[in-house]
Amino acid sequence: MVKIDGGVTAPIGFKAAGVAAGLKKNGNPDLAMVYSEDICVAVGVYTTNVVKGHSLQLTMDNMKNGYANAVIINSGCANACVGHMGYEDAVKITKYCAEILDIDEENMLIGSTGVIGVPLDTDIIMKGADLLKERLSENGGNDAARAIMTTDTHPKEAAVDIMLNGKHVRIGAMAKGSGMIHPNMATMISIITTDANISKKALEPIFREIVEKTYNRVSVDGDTSVCDMTIMLANGAADDAPIVPGTDDYEKFAEALEYVCETLAKMLAKDGEGATKLLEIQVKNVLSKEDAYKIAVAVAKSPLVKTAVFGEDANWGRIITAAGYSGAVFNPDSADIYIGGVKTCENGVALPFDEEKAKEELKKDEITVVIDLKYGEFSDRIWTCDFSYDYVKINGSYRS
Amino acid sequence: MVKIDGGVTAPIGFKAAGVAAGLKKNGNPDLAMVYSEDICVAVGVYTTNVVKGHSLQLTMDNMKNGYANAVIINSGCANACVGHMGYEDAVKITKYCAEILDIDEENMLIGSTGVIGVPLDTDIIMKGADLLKERLSENGGNDAARAIMTTDTHPKEAAVDIMLNGKHVRIGAMAKGSGMIHPNMATMISIITTDANISKKALEPIFREIVEKTYNRVSVDGDTSVCDMTIMLANGAADDAPIVPGTDDYEKFAEALEYVCETLAKMLAKDGEGATKLLEIQVKNVLSKEDAYKIAVAVAKSPLVKTAVFGEDANWGRIITAAGYSGAVFNPDSADIYIGGVKTCENGVALPFDEEKAKEELKKDEITVVIDLKYGEFSDRIWTCDFSYDYVKINGSYRS
Repeated sequence: MVKIDGGVTAPIGFKAAGVAAGLKKNGNPDLAMVYSEDICVAVGVYTTNVVKGHSLQLTMDNMKNGYANAVIINSGCANACVGHMGYEDAVKITKYCAEILDIDEENMLIGSTGVIGVPLDTDIIMKGADLLKERLSENGGNDAARAIMTTDTHPKEAAVDIMLNGKHVRIGAMAKGSGMIHPNMATMISIITTDANISKKALEPIFREIVEKTYNRVSVDGDTSVCDMTIMLANGAADDAPIVPGTDDYEKFAEALEYVCETLAKMLAKDGEGATKLLEIQVKNVLSKEDAYKIAVAVAKSPLVKTAVFGEDANWGRIITAAGYSGAVFNPDSADIYIGGVKTCENGVALPFDEEKAKEELKKDEITVVIDLKYGEFSDRIWTCDFSYDYVKINGSYRS
Repeated sequence: MVKIDGGVTAPIGFKAAGVAAGLKKNGNPDLAMVYSEDICVAVGVYTTNVVKGHSLQLTMDNMKNGYANAVIINSGCANACVGHMGYEDAVKITKYCAEILDIDEENMLIGSTGVIGVPLDTDIIMKGADLLKERLSENGGNDAARAIMTTDTHPKEAAVDIMLNGKHVRIGAMAKGSGMIHPNMATMISIITTDANISKKALEPIFREIVEKTYNRVSVDGDTSVCDMTIMLANGAADDAPIVPGTDDYEKFAEALEYVCETLAKMLAKDGEGATKLLEIQVKNVLSKEDAYKIAVAVAKSPLVKTAVFGEDANWGRIITAAGYSGAVFNPDSADIYIGGVKTCENGVALPFDEEKAKEELKKDEITVVIDLKYGEFSDRIWTCDFSYDYVKINGSYRS
């Protein structure tokens, strides 16, 4: 596996573009398109929020046939909670895009992210779609990654090249995230592309498993938005032999996909709104995987843990406290806690530790917290970030 | 029911005191005692955290007989996660206090709140206990309320007087809270006293029910600490006829107790760390009380909702989003949302509303958010506060 430059247009046969259509008041890029002339096998994972954005609803409908050629994504407006009109607007846009791209309407997908309760400006988006179509390019991945950003501070892309049976196969992806991020598809949208030759039946299980381990292990603030989705498109343009479950090539492909998703997941956590640090919370040795997840989530969501990390304060008491209220079953008298390389607590009891060394660990860009409960065999880990003044600033006036 | 001045010493027969024993570096009061010469019926509710502070563990043991005379509470040190020594220290302190107060050891309770993982300084506390004993007074309630504060900005007390069958009966209380506050006893400690003549059997059910509706409906940051407890002591000094379930007097007494607890619960939420506003989240008309609670908690915990309120931004999209990921079942297409008096969303669809008027509502000290889901008959409400720069500041360096 070789890490290569680029994102969604790294795999062959994919084109993309991003433009400033005029949805964002500040003139930043706000409309992106990803397109493959060859029809793609398409799989998706969507937010579990009871409230779902109208664009997402249409995409879920259009994904039912298992194929897609293209997706258009706008940032700046979520197209959520605007009534029947929201779905109709999404239909209008996908219909128009399908026409200009000369593809079937049900193979056109749409994503929207931004403020809730404001109608989509379909005229602006359709004009933007014309421009996108003109600009679609094999080098357009970065422009697309920029155009889907909301409060992200930088575009997020990753791509790899693997050799399968003598053929190059590529996987590329882009993602946007930042706030309202939590497992089960936060305010995140990600498009993954591959030129691999793989059936929906073969792709779906590894895709779901990997999303579960990567994108669904990112928490910025515990909020799960109404618009979020990860879509993967496989166009088979690499002309490799079909990738079949149970083979080495399948494993290799899964490993590469996991690498791409994990890279982006960490980027999402690290670029969490106002974040200054990436935190990996590792929970080890509990009775069930559910308990491991509960503890990891409770710690990752705790504003007290996150502000302490921002303040570079090795307040492990807040970590064991969060584990304690997570709902998981464990014996606090066997808990060990590490902050970076510093062991702060053994068998549930405070250790004398070097505060200066702990502070140094907490000054790092990336910090691993390990909670070893020595109470079973199951483990999990989640990525999050610290909680800063800027989080409050960014979110105190998002709509203005 | 008449609201009267004072707190735990408003009921007759109770004395209290608060001193600066020397646990807090800044010299603030840090040790409190509440005492009744007459033995009291005692009931308690404790944190549900798996991790429990050592002082709390001893109090839970000493509460088993259903009686108590006194409680000593220190702020500044949680006496948690320090190993066997923590329980032994708590025993040493209660033993000493029982001696100087001339009461049975098992009728002495202890509470500790503050930093986790640091041993109690028992010498300081025992010296402080001597001083407390000297200063115990029928006017000492406010001093005690001050001495249990951690990051609270002001002491919290409430008291009422009711007439039961021609006799005055009083209920008084103090509480401390501020951060790490969430249902199931946050970093809150509250002592409620009454001179009513009531058996444990009669008191316990209303006490539990009322704590559930009041203290367990406060969320500052979703964190539930390891030390938290509410203890109620009834010494019978009012010499009223026993208060018996099923009578009007019992109802009157319950109503007064609820008033006291609700008053303190709101004070706790409003004085949440860094808070500038009290938020009451009302959830109406869902299928079950569990669903009503889930939605109220999700909205009250959402950092996105809380920062928007701090920024006085009527971002109701975040409210419906939080309801949507709460795990409760409802139909988003029947959701109405009100911020103060402003209806922002009807049947799940954005309403055009006067942004200026909404901003004015959000400028108020106390704001009610109503989420009416028109999808059942159950309702709930929870108190919380906004999320400000100061929350981050206070919690970024709590231990230093």
